Amino acid sequence: MQYNVIFQPAGWRGTAIAGKSLLEISREVGVDIEAPCGETGMCGKCKIRVEAGFFESLGITSRLTNLSPITEKERKLLSQEELADQYRLACCSRIQGDILIYVPEQSRAAEQVILESGREKAFVLKPAIAQYSVKLNKPTLEDYRDDFSRIKDALGSGFIQFDKNVDIDYSLLTQLPDILRQNRWQVNVVVWNDSEIIAVQAQGEEGLYGIAIDIGTTTIAASLCDLTTGSIIARESLINSQVRYGDDVISRITYCMMNDDGLSTLNKIIIEDINTLVRRLTKTVGIEPKMVLEMVLVFNTVMHHLVLNINPQYIGSVPFASAIRRSFNVKAKELGIEIAKSGYVHCLPIEAGFVGADNVAVLIAEEPYKQDKMMLVIDIGTNGEINFGNKEGMLSASCATGPALEGAQIKFGMRAAPGAIERVVINGFTKEAEVNTIGESICGSLSSQVAAKGICGSGIIDAVAELFKAGIIRSDGTFNKKIESPRVRQGVDGKFEYVLVWAQDTAIGQDITITQKDVRAVQLAKAALYAGAKILMNKKGVDKVDEVILAGAFGNYINKENALVIGMFPDCDLENVTAVGNAAGEGAKLALMNVDKRAEAEHVAGFIQFVETATESEFQTNFYDAMFFPHAKDTFPHIQQILNTIPI
Amino acid sequence: MQYNVIFQPAGWRGTAIAGKSLLEISREVGVDIEAPCGETGMCGKCKIRVEAGFFESLGITSRLTNLSPITEKERKLLSQEELADQYRLACCSRIQGDILIYVPEQSRAAEQVILESGREKAFVLKPAIAQYSVKLNKPTLEDYRDDFSRIKDALGSGFIQFDKNVDIDYSLLTQLPDILRQNRWQVNVVVWNDSEIIAVQAQGEEGLYGIAIDIGTTTIAASLCDLTTGSIIARESLINSQVRYGDDVISRITYCMMNDDGLSTLNKIIIEDINTLVRRLTKTVGIEPKMVLEMVLVFNTVMHHLVLNINPQYIGSVPFASAIRRSFNVKAKELGIEIAKSGYVHCLPIEAGFVGADNVAVLIAEEPYKQDKMMLVIDIGTNGEINFGNKEGMLSASCATGPALEGAQIKFGMRAAPGAIERVVINGFTKEAEVNTIGESICGSLSSQVAAKGICGSGIIDAVAELFKAGIIRSDGTFNKKIESPRVRQGVDGKFEYVLVWAQDTAIGQDITITQKDVRAVQLAKAALYAGAKILMNKKGVDKVDEVILAGAFGNYINKENALVIGMFPDCDLENVTAVGNAAGEGAKLALMNVDKRAEAEHVAGFIQFVETATESEFQTNFYDAMFFPHAKDTFPHIQQILNTIPI
Repeated sequence: MQYNVIFQPAGWRGTAIAGKSLLEISREVGVDIEAPCGETGMCGKCKIRVEAGFFESLGITSRLTNLSPITEKERKLLSQEELADQYRLACCSRIQGDILIYVPEQSRAAEQVILESGREKAFVLKPAIAQYSVKLNKPTLEDYRDDFSRIKDALGSGFIQFDKNVDIDYSLLTQLPDILRQNRWQVNVVVWNDSEIIAVQAQGEEGLYGIAIDIGTTTIAASLCDLTTGSIIARESLINSQVRYGDDVISRITYCMMNDDGLSTLNKIIIEDINTLVRRLTKTVGIEPKMVLEMVLVFNTVMHHLVLNINPQYIGSVPFASAIRRSFNVKAKELGIEIAKSGYVHCLPIEAGFVGADNVAVLIAEEPYKQDKMMLVIDIGTNGEINFGNKEGMLSASCATGPALEGAQIKFGMRAAPGAIERVVINGFTKEAEVNTIGESICGSLSSQVAAKGICGSGIIDAVAELFKAGIIRSDGTFNKKIESPRVRQGVDGKFEYVLVWAQDTAIGQDITITQKDVRAVQLAKAALYAGAKILMNKKGVDKVDEVILAGAFGNYINKENALVIGMFPDCDLENVTAVGNAAGEGAKLALMNVDKRAEAEHVAGFIQFVETATESEFQTNFYDAMFFPHAKDTFPHIQQILNTIPI
Repeated sequence: MQYNVIFQPAGWRGTAIAGKSLLEISREVGVDIEAPCGETGMCGKCKIRVEAGFFESLGITSRLTNLSPITEKERKLLSQEELADQYRLACCSRIQGDILIYVPEQSRAAEQVILESGREKAFVLKPAIAQYSVKLNKPTLEDYRDDFSRIKDALGSGFIQFDKNVDIDYSLLTQLPDILRQNRWQVNVVVWNDSEIIAVQAQGEEGLYGIAIDIGTTTIAASLCDLTTGSIIARESLINSQVRYGDDVISRITYCMMNDDGLSTLNKIIIEDINTLVRRLTKTVGIEPKMVLEMVLVFNTVMHHLVLNINPQYIGSVPFASAIRRSFNVKAKELGIEIAKSGYVHCLPIEAGFVGADNVAVLIAEEPYKQDKMMLVIDIGTNGEINFGNKEGMLSASCATGPALEGAQIKFGMRAAPGAIERVVINGFTKEAEVNTIGESICGSLSSQVAAKGICGSGIIDAVAELFKAGIIRSDGTFNKKIESPRVRQGVDGKFEYVLVWAQDTAIGQDITITQKDVRAVQLAKAALYAGAKILMNKKGVDKVDEVILAGAFGNYINKENALVIGMFPDCDLENVTAVGNAAGEGAKLALMNVDKRAEAEHVAGFIQFVETATESEFQTNFYDAMFFPHAKDTFPHIQQILNTIPI
């Protein structure tokens, strides 16, 4: 008897035989669950939670009784609250029905997500918060100024001409008299945007910290910055805990609409994710979360609304009107974000509809709007954003690529973690494959070649391109059934698949395959990107791009030649194609480090013109033609030599 | 056996015989406790709370066991929580030891405090909040502006040129998409200070409400204003619940210093008082508290700090430095004040040390700084504030008058409520007294002459002045022992006293007297005012005042001739002496109604020069001379005729 098993947040879906333990299943499929005791039920580390309910989109009903009864060991190792919250130990729970499992952060092994930084750019350090060391005169009967004026006057005379309206955070004001006297009138004063005093600290606590966060639909990546030096002193990332309510933004919106407390639920867990990152980042460098005085957030429009606790319903359907477009500042405590009570969160502006602040962040990192040449900037996430133009004008569009290019919703897809296949080469003659996996982290560097557990985004693009170049799949994406190789076979569904790694060479004991469905997912994704790019080029009246920037979490591992071979973007000299990694995170960091970048973001969000591709009459044709590898009609002079070698 | 009994917040202190019920005692001494069932223990309305502990300043130890055991009736009528919180019914509790009783607001009968409005001035209606009716275009694929921009653009084109930086309250933003769509894009938008959208409402909810509150050490008076018409639509007042932690600001500061959670305790109860007033005011006119969009607060410096939850310790001792002097705005919710979530509280600026925003409010109501003539503006509260000058310059000082002139800490003192003696005439020949009491409120007007319960502020000033004019007390405040009248007698302490009302004519069954101690209290209070005024006059180099303004909660009932007879202020033509009532409350109202008055307040607080009288070498001499009626040395040409008729 086989049952459906789904592991969140990894997103693994499949079936398993009745009676197998959840830990066994997780091992086989490459879902990381901590189990240092060797499945003896002694350590209690392999806690998982059963998500109960009928999950329409998955077609399963998950309930606690679909697992074997709770054992004595579990009663000993789990608290009453945990048992009430449907926690189990993965090693003790055997399946006897369909089940949806959530693996909490603390139970996830190999948590070293490959932290992608963007291509780091030189920047001027000009943060919104500045720190001034002041020595005040004690009040006397002659000089009975109030404490606030005393600080303000000292700032005004000693440093810069503050606006007369310089303010002070209310909660700080309530502490001010004691702080000044405890520190004998010698303090460091932190001023935000030359307009509000947000911290008055003992001298000796000179650090000035900020955090930049890129909140993706699937991944949240954060950097802790020392704003006195401009350096990043810690990075952390997490899987967005909202994934258990849906893989993409549309399913999150649907969850909000279908549940009375849906928005509140999704808001709370994303805020908790942010707070988890804040705690980890600050712990790493040995500071308190309250010492972080500013935060910059970038996100797509739906995550923007969910983080801000705004109903996202209306951005989910035509005409996609958001609640607020422009950048704004809000006290962290109003959002429930646990940095300094007086600290601000700066949200970069969003553009329109599905084009969010993350795209604006990509733009301020890459600055196509300052160029003469026509640049195509593609940011690949669960949603793809495309920008095209130069200093004369910029267009942008949003494409529903789905998460395939991130390694999700692919049969053996996984995120870029140890054991993920990141590079693939297929011999055109033997049809044999060679793969590279991401290694374990050993003392900060990665060892090479650990046994494969699955395929990440860059691996998927490589695999499909190599299959095409080897003639195993045709230009229309179908398998060439004439290929004679043990690796090309029919799967259980009768459809063809290619064995990338044989079971004995994997860490999961199964053949890792690329299925027809996987190829289709890649086709749909790349066609959406290509068609979107073409519409923007047509609007600009140009038929070639001078430069291509590929951004995205997987970005700088991508094989750009293979990306062009499958037709992810229109033809371009490969010398002028650059993979820049997480440019959205880089943009967030730049906005944290330099307020001029915030003004630039505001300007760009207004300068760039949004194109709603769904309503363009040519989109369907463009999309259909772009489903082919590399394209049904367009030529690719820069890779023509490669294309010429393809067997069929 | 006699025990000490103290009723708070009325402030009555005295002794009573063992076995008397608290309700009986309260009846005898004129403390109002609700008891509609006629002391049968049926209605449960006479709830009081025992304040337990050792009260050093009172020299008593109060505990629950100093009352008779809890009865069956009480167990029936009081909740478990109330019993745990030491609540009792006054009718069922008989004293068997010293006891400090707090009478909660809901148990107080005759709650109609005489609501003093200031002398109402003509004013221009120009509130900080303005309301605009807008009809927005629905979003379309062509016009996909965000909701916020849609409103901002409509305001900008239809009404006024809003600053580009016009903001929106964050909590309102979270509701904005739903509000706009539920109201089909036709809404009223409320903008605060042309800079922040704080409400977006259904049309038909056109009201625009604000509340002005004068937070005194003893009394809190609030007005609910309709900011579309400029009219006051409801008034309420309360005894400041903090009085049970001390009668004056110094004892409140001491409480904060001696108790770890002292500040938090005092802050919470004053905020709850404000919220009680908000609920009552809005209930009166049938609106919700959340419809109140702005609040203006005035207070002395200590109440300012306590309301804002700032440690008041440092304003309690030299050099009296406050945390913040200038006016500022803070979201009501940050203070825990329950008006609209997005609403602001505006705090008028304080001057220095003990001269608070309430004095600034008096000044913007009376505007001495716009005059040519030299004006003396005296605000009499538990602390007295004195201002002197004209448009060339203003000086101010603060005097520790004590609460005597408000009717507190006087043997039979009480607040200005029904039964309080407010006017006194004593026949110079017969030495007999005639008194006027404040009547019961009947359908909004007051009936005359109810039996006396005690003496309020204006009655005390009258009584002392009349005793002096009748020759019963001498210029130095001592009783003239040669007077032969049954009303002049020695009290139990051996000191002389004057019987103002015989027991049979009172509501309390005791002779109401003016004691030597009472006269001393008035002398100290008036001497502080006079000496302060003289110091300011000397600093200005003038020896006469052109005009005197007497402000204070009792203010417009004061007999200004008698006030001059006892020497509350230097000689002045009585034609130019005006009693204006609660001018601080009037100033708060003006600041609520007109933002220009806020700017004026800010200007005045800087313009006026504070004089610390305690450190002036001449103060002691001035103070000593001013202890005499009307003064040891100064002459009073304008009342010389009256003074000439005094027997001795």
